[in-house]
Amino acid sequence: MSDRDDLRKALLEPAAVAVIGASDEVGKIPARPVEFLMRHGFDGEIFPINPRRDTVLGRKAFANLDALPRKVDQAYIVLPTGPAMQAVEECVRHSVKAVSILADGFAEVGEQGLELQRKLVAMVRGTGTRVVGPNSLGLVRTWNGLSMTANAAFAHDKLNTGGCTVLSQSGSLIGTFVSRGRTRGIGFANLVSVGNEADLSIGEIGDCLIDDPKTDTFLLFLETIRHADKLAAFARRAAAAGKPVLAYKLGRSDIGAELAVSHTGALVGSDAAADALLRDLGISRVNIFEALLEGPPLLRGRAPRSARPTVTMLTTTGGGAAMVADQLGTSGIDVEGVGEPSRAVLKDKGIVIKPGRIADLTLTGTRYDTVRTIMDELLVAPDTDIIVSVIGSSAEFFPEQTVAPIVDAVKAAKPGHAPVAVSLVPQAEQAMKMLAEAGIACFRTSESCADAIRAWAERRPPRVPAAPELPAAAALIAAQKGTWTERDALNLFAACGIATVKQEIVSVEDIRSGKPLDLSFPVVAKLLSADLPHKTEAGAVALGIGSAQELLAAVERMLASARAYAPGARIDGVMLQRQLSAVGEVLVGLREDPSVGPVITVGMGGITTEIYRDIALRLAPVTPAEAAEMLDDVRGFAVLKGFRGRPRGDLAALAEAVSRLSQLCAGGLVAEAEINPLLVMTEGHGVSAVDGLVVPRTG
Amino acid sequence: MSDRDDLRKALLEPAAVAVIGASDEVGKIPARPVEFLMRHGFDGEIFPINPRRDTVLGRKAFANLDALPRKVDQAYIVLPTGPAMQAVEECVRHSVKAVSILADGFAEVGEQGLELQRKLVAMVRGTGTRVVGPNSLGLVRTWNGLSMTANAAFAHDKLNTGGCTVLSQSGSLIGTFVSRGRTRGIGFANLVSVGNEADLSIGEIGDCLIDDPKTDTFLLFLETIRHADKLAAFARRAAAAGKPVLAYKLGRSDIGAELAVSHTGALVGSDAAADALLRDLGISRVNIFEALLEGPPLLRGRAPRSARPTVTMLTTTGGGAAMVADQLGTSGIDVEGVGEPSRAVLKDKGIVIKPGRIADLTLTGTRYDTVRTIMDELLVAPDTDIIVSVIGSSAEFFPEQTVAPIVDAVKAAKPGHAPVAVSLVPQAEQAMKMLAEAGIACFRTSESCADAIRAWAERRPPRVPAAPELPAAAALIAAQKGTWTERDALNLFAACGIATVKQEIVSVEDIRSGKPLDLSFPVVAKLLSADLPHKTEAGAVALGIGSAQELLAAVERMLASARAYAPGARIDGVMLQRQLSAVGEVLVGLREDPSVGPVITVGMGGITTEIYRDIALRLAPVTPAEAAEMLDDVRGFAVLKGFRGRPRGDLAALAEAVSRLSQLCAGGLVAEAEINPLLVMTEGHGVSAVDGLVVPRTG
Repeated sequence: MSDRDDLRKALLEPAAVAVIGASDEVGKIPARPVEFLMRHGFDGEIFPINPRRDTVLGRKAFANLDALPRKVDQAYIVLPTGPAMQAVEECVRHSVKAVSILADGFAEVGEQGLELQRKLVAMVRGTGTRVVGPNSLGLVRTWNGLSMTANAAFAHDKLNTGGCTVLSQSGSLIGTFVSRGRTRGIGFANLVSVGNEADLSIGEIGDCLIDDPKTDTFLLFLETIRHADKLAAFARRAAAAGKPVLAYKLGRSDIGAELAVSHTGALVGSDAAADALLRDLGISRVNIFEALLEGPPLLRGRAPRSARPTVTMLTTTGGGAAMVADQLGTSGIDVEGVGEPSRAVLKDKGIVIKPGRIADLTLTGTRYDTVRTIMDELLVAPDTDIIVSVIGSSAEFFPEQTVAPIVDAVKAAKPGHAPVAVSLVPQAEQAMKMLAEAGIACFRTSESCADAIRAWAERRPPRVPAAPELPAAAALIAAQKGTWTERDALNLFAACGIATVKQEIVSVEDIRSGKPLDLSFPVVAKLLSADLPHKTEAGAVALGIGSAQELLAAVERMLASARAYAPGARIDGVMLQRQLSAVGEVLVGLREDPSVGPVITVGMGGITTEIYRDIALRLAPVTPAEAAEMLDDVRGFAVLKGFRGRPRGDLAALAEAVSRLSQLCAGGLVAEAEINPLLVMTEGHGVSAVDGLVVPRTG
Repeated sequence: MSDRDDLRKALLEPAAVAVIGASDEVGKIPARPVEFLMRHGFDGEIFPINPRRDTVLGRKAFANLDALPRKVDQAYIVLPTGPAMQAVEECVRHSVKAVSILADGFAEVGEQGLELQRKLVAMVRGTGTRVVGPNSLGLVRTWNGLSMTANAAFAHDKLNTGGCTVLSQSGSLIGTFVSRGRTRGIGFANLVSVGNEADLSIGEIGDCLIDDPKTDTFLLFLETIRHADKLAAFARRAAAAGKPVLAYKLGRSDIGAELAVSHTGALVGSDAAADALLRDLGISRVNIFEALLEGPPLLRGRAPRSARPTVTMLTTTGGGAAMVADQLGTSGIDVEGVGEPSRAVLKDKGIVIKPGRIADLTLTGTRYDTVRTIMDELLVAPDTDIIVSVIGSSAEFFPEQTVAPIVDAVKAAKPGHAPVAVSLVPQAEQAMKMLAEAGIACFRTSESCADAIRAWAERRPPRVPAAPELPAAAALIAAQKGTWTERDALNLFAACGIATVKQEIVSVEDIRSGKPLDLSFPVVAKLLSADLPHKTEAGAVALGIGSAQELLAAVERMLASARAYAPGARIDGVMLQRQLSAVGEVLVGLREDPSVGPVITVGMGGITTEIYRDIALRLAPVTPAEAAEMLDDVRGFAVLKGFRGRPRGDLAALAEAVSRLSQLCAGGLVAEAEINPLLVMTEGHGVSAVDGLVVPRTG
């Protein structure tokens, strides 16, 4: 048996479990795990550990692990923080393979707790004992009744089984899945509250569950990204196994990001970087929480046939369908009714569907036979990407007329048929359950429906990351320590193979003495100084200098301005650059995100970046082809694509430059590198790095 | 009795009604109104009209209105289009006050249907008969059992009564409200499917219901805006009566807007203009459909105390609360836990709440007494704007512990207490019903909760529109017909009191002959030509001309370029302008929206307008103070507010100019007017219109 199998058995299919600190008082949190294990008929042995009680909830209680008649595979420690640490020690001594810890007071409460958490990790490292949590509400597997949880939501008598495994950084949310799934007829395979992920992370737990035959989909509730490397290994293996991973992640807003820190003690990277990671790993991020619950059947279905799939929309309610279509539209997804070939086939069968963006069946008839015939046709029609059926009142009153034919058609269809999403406009529980049972995606709100379809449309396999390739010369320069001037930065970019502007460095004296230049006018002049990081603000840049006389005047003006701006600034000389006429200027940056590692960004700079946040961000490095895709994500790059009669910019050269800068992530040589601006010339004329900065790695 | 009362009685409290075309076949659409009227115990007389039946659903049927024993106040015509028109004639003859029409085939199907709709309107105009529809699923009032509808959702035995009146352009959606409201314990007062609004519009129907004692809130489902004037009158009167109006409107995306046209035959204005109208009228627009159902108690509650209210957030589930907070954050709404003064008060009562963005009560204890004490304090605390309670599993299992104390505290609080929103994380029907019954806003999803709170925070009274005031000189110029040059346009803007750039018009010959200029260099030169609307693209603009020699070269170059761009273009001369150095350039435009009338826009122009759609739009005219508010809505105007050390622009002068241009809407003299660019100088130095266009009204 592999280590993964071992871990999976210990976590979710243990033969015997102990609840350390189990309380005998029904209703109290430490009483819940034993109560729930018994209620859901756990198929292994249950040992309450409580030295002050003979029995707990009617079962014999034991003073400690020594007193047990057999070894346990798993223990849930429901004691307060201090005693919990002692109990972990005891578990290690008894070689308990999996231990989950309810107590809080660890990394989420600041430096002192972080220290305690480090102690906890050190205590188990290399021992064969693995820890879930701390701050974990426990683990549940529905198939064997393992309700090792303190989450109150598991008080129901019956837990629905199902194919989704939930891994959640929020313990209370595992209860939400169960509670909201119940009314829809949706059940789960496993639900794990991963807590602080001090030892076992979502990635490692997920990884050991990929081979769980009961799991067909993973649902992640994320407050932040921890252990990105393990998450990556898990996601790649899950994709290879054909088991989709969906995620909802907090942190779209600054408040959300801040809460994630205070709540879980994580060092939080940017949400954009987390988004790039999830995308790279083929994890489908949803924005509406219920899409996580309702979306899985879509994500398990046939992949989109093109990068811009079109939705074939059927409905019995124009207004309801328009709500879904409107929201799909804001995500850039097109909606069309039934295509001409299928309309012709259906017409031969006596069913007339009018052309149009939405096929409204109200007039065609919403009887079983009609809907069934239409579905049978569309499920295998070569021009159908995805079928979305928006059903009105009939879903509530006559599901046998409008819902049953969808269920039957999908059941009868051969594998590889078009995926189907059903959006219910009324409250229609029976319809929800019929669809859930048949494994068809069913949505309670138009928002969730549109969001899941967007996630499906954007779905792609994990990216195969290339190793960074840095020219030897660039690596040599990048290894330089100390303060970098922009001249050093441009030298590094040039060594990376990025064209840089023609330039010449002269002293102030040379200019004052009228020494001839190598460059021809017009030129741009900048004061060279490590003390002036923001040259424009300091008045240390002059454009469009047409003669030696103008140059002298500009330099004197810049010196005066710089002296006023930063009195003690050391001036190392004047950098002159040939003034180029470009289609546009862009900013390309490489930096280290604390959660996901090196990321590469490209945008237009200035207000489009700072105010509109119009940048593309990916994990570094990227290939030129991947960089070209990034360029498509920046809306402002319309100005490089023939905007209002302007010439087109050299996007191929820009993509190449982005890719080359991204290779600087190799070996962690630099902490940050930025080209700003990189001029983009007309098509075929390349790019030119004009200025930039490099921040070396400290230490 | 006023006309309004008359209309209200006829529409929703008729003493006798006829269903014309009533079918005897249960399950068929034309059978539904009679079936539902009987089922819900309509308290007036019901007359099925069907010349081919003696009875309909067990009731005596009549051949036509002549055969009736008494006059009816209302008729619902459920016949096909052609016969429906004849039935309207019959209703007019019998002075039936209110007639609703189910048939489609009118404005929504194109020109032919539009003609038929005009005929319909002409048929009833001035007769005393008013029409709802066509394409209407009917009218419902729960309080008297008036289920005059063909919407299948009303097949339930019992309809919940309530205070919300629904006015919907989508007929199927009135059923959605009832269906989704039912499981939440939410009922309605009236539900009206307004159809095409050929005669009676949402505005007029709403207006006659403001005095309905059973109605406390209006919910609008809009596909487009029709009869903006009537909508305005209704919204203003509703606000004065203290009855909030909430709206969900399709058309955020282009597809949504397109569907609204094809679905209802409306000439559709821009969604941004509709948004400005709703905002002006004090109508709260929600973006999540269920917020319309769940939000009303919030909107009926105390208004926000500041323009940026802070949410006081309590929870029993950190993850669930973070979801709401994260979404509030993306709308720019701050979340804080319990304020220091209240924490001190509570501490004295033995309840310790930690400071922080979210007050997590899990540790404090989620017993009745604790929650009740906290609520009693916060409801009247002077620093509480709004209370949001996010409840976890306890809402499902122990609502008496966490929900009941909220209900009791609100019931016991004096009027004017802080509004309360409850967001339920699990599926918790009993809790939903407890809260609905107490009139407390309860949300099933974090998305709906955050959206309703945003709508509440943005809530404001209707704007009192000022009449436009146009200087007499400007009115004279604006009345000019024919083609406008940019010179004419600048003259008009100057007459409106907007500073324009110093300029001089010279002939090409004058320049070639070296005739001296009045202006001093540097100047900007543009070819004057009505045939070259896009001067930059035509190469007909030259900047930074420093001498007479440069001017000659620039003019020859522009002439060559313009000839290549538009060979036949007539050149009327050269406009020279003093080249100014500005903090920024903006675009100010006035145009006529087909749905809402004249609108004024301001933005930065260029890509920020075209790509990021970063403009502010309001109904014209606006006062300088209102224009100043518009400037706050344009994110890109950060560059005018001291961005990265730049000087601040003269925002007061900009607001004044926006206000002045907006006065050009007076008397409908011009169809469109645009200043592009308007230069914004440093603070205290005003603005200067450099170029622009005016499109006169045709005919």
